[in-house]
Amino acid sequence: MTEADRLARAALCRLTEPGDSRLAALVAELGAEQVRQQLLDERDLHGLAGEISGRLASLDPAGDLERADRRGIRFVIPGDDEWPESLNRLRWAAPIQGRGGVPLGLWVTGPLDLADQSRAVAIVGSRSCTSYGTGVAAEIAAVTARSGLAVVSGAAYGIDQAAHRGALGASGVTIAVLACGVDRVYPKGAESLLAHLRDHGAVVSEAPPGCAPLRLRFLSRNRLIAALSSGTVIVEAAYRSGALNTANWTSSLDRVLMGVPGPVTSAASQGVHGLLRNGAAALVTCGEDVLELVSPSGEHVMAPARGPERPTDSLTIRQRQVLDAVPLHRGAPADSIARTAGIGLIEVRTALGRLAALGLVESGESGWRLTSEVRSA
Amino acid sequence: MTEADRLARAALCRLTEPGDSRLAALVAELGAEQVRQQLLDERDLHGLAGEISGRLASLDPAGDLERADRRGIRFVIPGDDEWPESLNRLRWAAPIQGRGGVPLGLWVTGPLDLADQSRAVAIVGSRSCTSYGTGVAAEIAAVTARSGLAVVSGAAYGIDQAAHRGALGASGVTIAVLACGVDRVYPKGAESLLAHLRDHGAVVSEAPPGCAPLRLRFLSRNRLIAALSSGTVIVEAAYRSGALNTANWTSSLDRVLMGVPGPVTSAASQGVHGLLRNGAAALVTCGEDVLELVSPSGEHVMAPARGPERPTDSLTIRQRQVLDAVPLHRGAPADSIARTAGIGLIEVRTALGRLAALGLVESGESGWRLTSEVRSA
Repeated sequence: MTEADRLARAALCRLTEPGDSRLAALVAELGAEQVRQQLLDERDLHGLAGEISGRLASLDPAGDLERADRRGIRFVIPGDDEWPESLNRLRWAAPIQGRGGVPLGLWVTGPLDLADQSRAVAIVGSRSCTSYGTGVAAEIAAVTARSGLAVVSGAAYGIDQAAHRGALGASGVTIAVLACGVDRVYPKGAESLLAHLRDHGAVVSEAPPGCAPLRLRFLSRNRLIAALSSGTVIVEAAYRSGALNTANWTSSLDRVLMGVPGPVTSAASQGVHGLLRNGAAALVTCGEDVLELVSPSGEHVMAPARGPERPTDSLTIRQRQVLDAVPLHRGAPADSIARTAGIGLIEVRTALGRLAALGLVESGESGWRLTSEVRSA
Repeated sequence: MTEADRLARAALCRLTEPGDSRLAALVAELGAEQVRQQLLDERDLHGLAGEISGRLASLDPAGDLERADRRGIRFVIPGDDEWPESLNRLRWAAPIQGRGGVPLGLWVTGPLDLADQSRAVAIVGSRSCTSYGTGVAAEIAAVTARSGLAVVSGAAYGIDQAAHRGALGASGVTIAVLACGVDRVYPKGAESLLAHLRDHGAVVSEAPPGCAPLRLRFLSRNRLIAALSSGTVIVEAAYRSGALNTANWTSSLDRVLMGVPGPVTSAASQGVHGLLRNGAAALVTCGEDVLELVSPSGEHVMAPARGPERPTDSLTIRQRQVLDAVPLHRGAPADSIARTAGIGLIEVRTALGRLAALGLVESGESGWRLTSEVRSA
């Protein structure tokens, strides 16, 4: 990759919206330099040149890169060591809501090397979430980060910020992917979080520095969150939540889509329940579930969840029938227990011996009864 | 079916525990009269005769039936008009936790004809449930009952009672299946509920009148709840909840198993989440979901859930880009909007016209801006 390619990509970045899949396809086919040159020559490439005429005049990619560099912002493009190979999958995915394609480049600030974060997990959800949702997002992020995986999210209010903070609270690695330039603060409430990530993590955007967070840019941004991660966890999302767009991208890119259930009475969980019901997402309840699903097979396999062992677990059906027939407090003789249980006396005596050995029954003056441990269980 | 068959079944009911799958298999093979006679003759049938010796002496099936009849309790057996054909499936299902088989008969009280309730839905769950669980159970039961389906449950504290009460609150039909005799009250707190069902619904048990609710009888009872229903909804169940036994029976009998998700922080939902995660149960969030799953295909099909329509839904990507570039308050001229959007001026003018027609933008002295409805959305 040459510096001319980098300059061409930086220029094209400013020419069109992030996630313009037609431009991405042209660049994949012809190379960025060719596309840039032809557009500068005002050749009409599938209608692109006409639309961008308003911007052509003001371009200064070399100056852009220099100004960005002075502010600690690098422009990572395909072929760079830091380029996340996972983004290349976007070349073959169909556009969603008109957005798609491999980004021309990523504007990045922060000490993290993106190429080292190939086993990241995205944790996203609604801005209008519940405290249940933020609590679960932070907990899942903490477990994920503690196991060495980066947590990717969008720095939005609600679930996104809870995920970033959960990862940071576990001294883990977390990456914010923005819809605006990485030098901007959006939303305003993410100021200290973004400042922290610029110093200790990474803040990433497809939009060049200075760009505003226009609505369509969130759709473009969401595909990057999905593409940068091995899997995406949707924590809370109402029916029209933007998080469902990230979910679509995750499925479309063949990454693991996961959903956290919540109360069916909560509108914030309805979108997630929809994904779980139609089988698009796998149900996860904790960070360990997430690790199991995104890890190479064999790693992080969880023992099937079950309740605590009980002393009665090892009993045969017959022995349980006898135990059922032993009175709680006042003792009963073996023949009375045999009648209650409908089991022969000899078998009942054998069973009572075994139950006594397990500490489940005891014999007193008036006969057999449950031990105090069993009574209180 | 003869009265001798009925007497033999009533006698065998008292000889062994409900859900004794060996006895059920013998009766299916030889007929109840044969089995009874051979046991009375003390012929050892696979070890059965030895075990039941303690009870043989006290049997009076004719008296049992007569006493039951005087108390409004009937004994429904295979071949009776009221016999629920759905129970016959139990003949081919493998025992679970040692219990299984077609019941010898059902002791029934209440005006409902069981044969009319072939499209019942079971709604069950933990006794140690949350108010979220009881609320959802009652709501699902109400919707189910309102559509004409019977709600089957076990009258236990918690989810079961909420399901019965939800159905009754919707003036619907509900059936309690007990682990003890139908003349007994268990649990004590179900007294008024059971009294109501004896007068207006049905109370059913495999155990003869007078039998106590021993622990193993709940396992036998659970298979009847599953078998009597087209599908089973598990509302809340911890990892070791008995409701999971009912879930096993539902799957084993090829009925529809459904689970209601809840907060992942709630132990009462852990068992349900396990069923949803491993694909054993389908996720349902409301009664309409349940009706869709248990109804013959084509009935009760729900429109895919989605949020409210928005005026921007019909916009093209281009038009949305232009809308994004229109300022909130202070107006902007079209050429400024064109620069922000990165779209040619002619196309921007066309788009603004369309957006104005939809009531999304308006033009004032200083140019184009969003309308107040869009600003407040």
